[in-house]
Amino acid sequence: MRPTDEQLHARRAAVGRTIAHDDLDGLVVTTLVNVRYLSGFTGSNGALLLRPDGSGTFVTDGRYRDQAAHEVPGLDHVVERDMVAALASRTAGRWGVETHTMSVETHSTLSAATDAELVAVDRPVERARETKDDAEVASLREACAISTAALEGLLSGPLVGRTEQDLARDLEWRMLGLGAEAIAFETILASGENSAIPHHHPSDREVATGDLLKIDFGARVDGYHADCTRTVVVGHADDWQREVHAAVRRAQTLGVRALREDAPVAEIDVAVRADLEDSGWLEHFTTGLGHGVGLLIHEDPFFSARHAGRLGRRTTLTMEPGIYVPGRGGVRIEDTVLVTADEPDVLTALTTELLEIV
Amino acid sequence: MRPTDEQLHARRAAVGRTIAHDDLDGLVVTTLVNVRYLSGFTGSNGALLLRPDGSGTFVTDGRYRDQAAHEVPGLDHVVERDMVAALASRTAGRWGVETHTMSVETHSTLSAATDAELVAVDRPVERARETKDDAEVASLREACAISTAALEGLLSGPLVGRTEQDLARDLEWRMLGLGAEAIAFETILASGENSAIPHHHPSDREVATGDLLKIDFGARVDGYHADCTRTVVVGHADDWQREVHAAVRRAQTLGVRALREDAPVAEIDVAVRADLEDSGWLEHFTTGLGHGVGLLIHEDPFFSARHAGRLGRRTTLTMEPGIYVPGRGGVRIEDTVLVTADEPDVLTALTTELLEIV
Repeated sequence: MRPTDEQLHARRAAVGRTIAHDDLDGLVVTTLVNVRYLSGFTGSNGALLLRPDGSGTFVTDGRYRDQAAHEVPGLDHVVERDMVAALASRTAGRWGVETHTMSVETHSTLSAATDAELVAVDRPVERARETKDDAEVASLREACAISTAALEGLLSGPLVGRTEQDLARDLEWRMLGLGAEAIAFETILASGENSAIPHHHPSDREVATGDLLKIDFGARVDGYHADCTRTVVVGHADDWQREVHAAVRRAQTLGVRALREDAPVAEIDVAVRADLEDSGWLEHFTTGLGHGVGLLIHEDPFFSARHAGRLGRRTTLTMEPGIYVPGRGGVRIEDTVLVTADEPDVLTALTTELLEIV
Repeated sequence: MRPTDEQLHARRAAVGRTIAHDDLDGLVVTTLVNVRYLSGFTGSNGALLLRPDGSGTFVTDGRYRDQAAHEVPGLDHVVERDMVAALASRTAGRWGVETHTMSVETHSTLSAATDAELVAVDRPVERARETKDDAEVASLREACAISTAALEGLLSGPLVGRTEQDLARDLEWRMLGLGAEAIAFETILASGENSAIPHHHPSDREVATGDLLKIDFGARVDGYHADCTRTVVVGHADDWQREVHAAVRRAQTLGVRALREDAPVAEIDVAVRADLEDSGWLEHFTTGLGHGVGLLIHEDPFFSARHAGRLGRRTTLTMEPGIYVPGRGGVRIEDTVLVTADEPDVLTALTTELLEIV
């Protein structure tokens, strides 16, 4: 669902408090996805001047005058062609800027044009975005439900003899038909030895009996992304496929269960890797363990053994260990999970058992 | 088609000459689309250290080890998790950086870690990308051919009673079915008074007899984007619809004809606006006249009355005047056009006459 005015106001008030805490007169929000999060604006060019009390001025260009009036009713609007000039003329004192995304060039132009001292801030909007509100959870839940239903549909049809490209397109069509506004990212659909490539582009290879078939995909709803991977066997699995799948499944199950409020992020990363080491496959786990997911397909927090933080309640993350053996094949299992104070809420609710599609 | 090794080498050599001209020891290419242009790499994390002689070192992380080996055969490879550290340890002397996209934060980290003096450069790769080589023209031509064929298919079917969303999805499915690797951007499909909104999201409004139907869409092939708009009337056009369409068509035809090698960009912008002023509609032309199109859907050059340059041969641009009357309706006609020394080569070859779809 789209956020209500009250939800948008609550988001702005929360980020406003962090900038008040940093003793700033305001925050220049130029990261487009952060502008969307705080204002509701879905266009491709907009910025927000956010003040500590949660009030704000929304800036866009003439193309978006009407859309902004409709989508951003609760804020003052400025419509100008030169966005940086519009921001510069409305800032004075100490203003935070999003230096992790603002280009050196834009920073230099803004800095020269404004009376304000520009201060680097450490991703206050991204930190707020880690905690999903009800509107966000509803959108994520719907995106995940569409995704899993689409995969069930795909796996109920014929697979053998169809190309990876054809199957990927079929899956994408199913998601759109089920109500996705778009696909969340380009589908990774890899068969046979291609499954060993973590981020494989679907090719014209035809799926054959005996193949591993790894499918990493998702739907987008209201700007929110689902991210799910399942790896099945076409026909009957051989012993090697069973072993690899079981090792990934054991690690993934362990990882999902660890997604609890206040769990140290690094400990989860270490624990899942230790499990893969126990089963003898760690050297073939060459990707990241998971990442936050929301308005971006990859967003904070990112799993790492060096992450110093703990999981917050209402954070959504992926848990996606994998084993990739070059030239032979690979397995990944991935869920999108909502962190709660209690049991993790797996939004991509679909069995992780090894499916043999005959 | 994908670029050959020779084409990639020629691109690197050309940009290498510009950095030699700027007396730099190399260029740190971190803009992902520029990395793709110069290396062939299609993944989501890569950088290129380009030297004046056109040689280079490609940097990516472990996820892309195999893909990079396959896609980027002609360069040295470095596979490291910390991209900025990998770049810093391999640069010394005077190196150019892409300050128009590099974040303040990345610049600061790189600057602290490298022995090199970092020098802002003025988009040398973007300037090279304005001139399309044979591989690029072939991909653009195919993307445009798929797009126009898909629209012809859509317009041959029933329209009345279907929602904007349904029609947009149908068009997108057709492009994918015809061989697009993806859609180039989210389809704008606007009916009735929604056609007055330049960048309208398809809604659940049902198309009715008498509607203007504005469709802005395109296919993507090999990373290259088609961009095309046609506005038709569902049923028989009334006098007002005819007048507006004719005014846009006259301006658009004039604009396309002006797309010649060495034509001053600003003069074209001024001429098309003057034509819309003559016909009395200029106040309702509230968007840009057009933009370069290639690996990005919007890229240099952008039409403006202040643009100081001239059109280069083998540049691809859109020409897309429009008239948008709030509450009533709007018309846009847009082609993707290849600039030659001679007649402009309209890649989206589809009539611009007013189509009445009965």
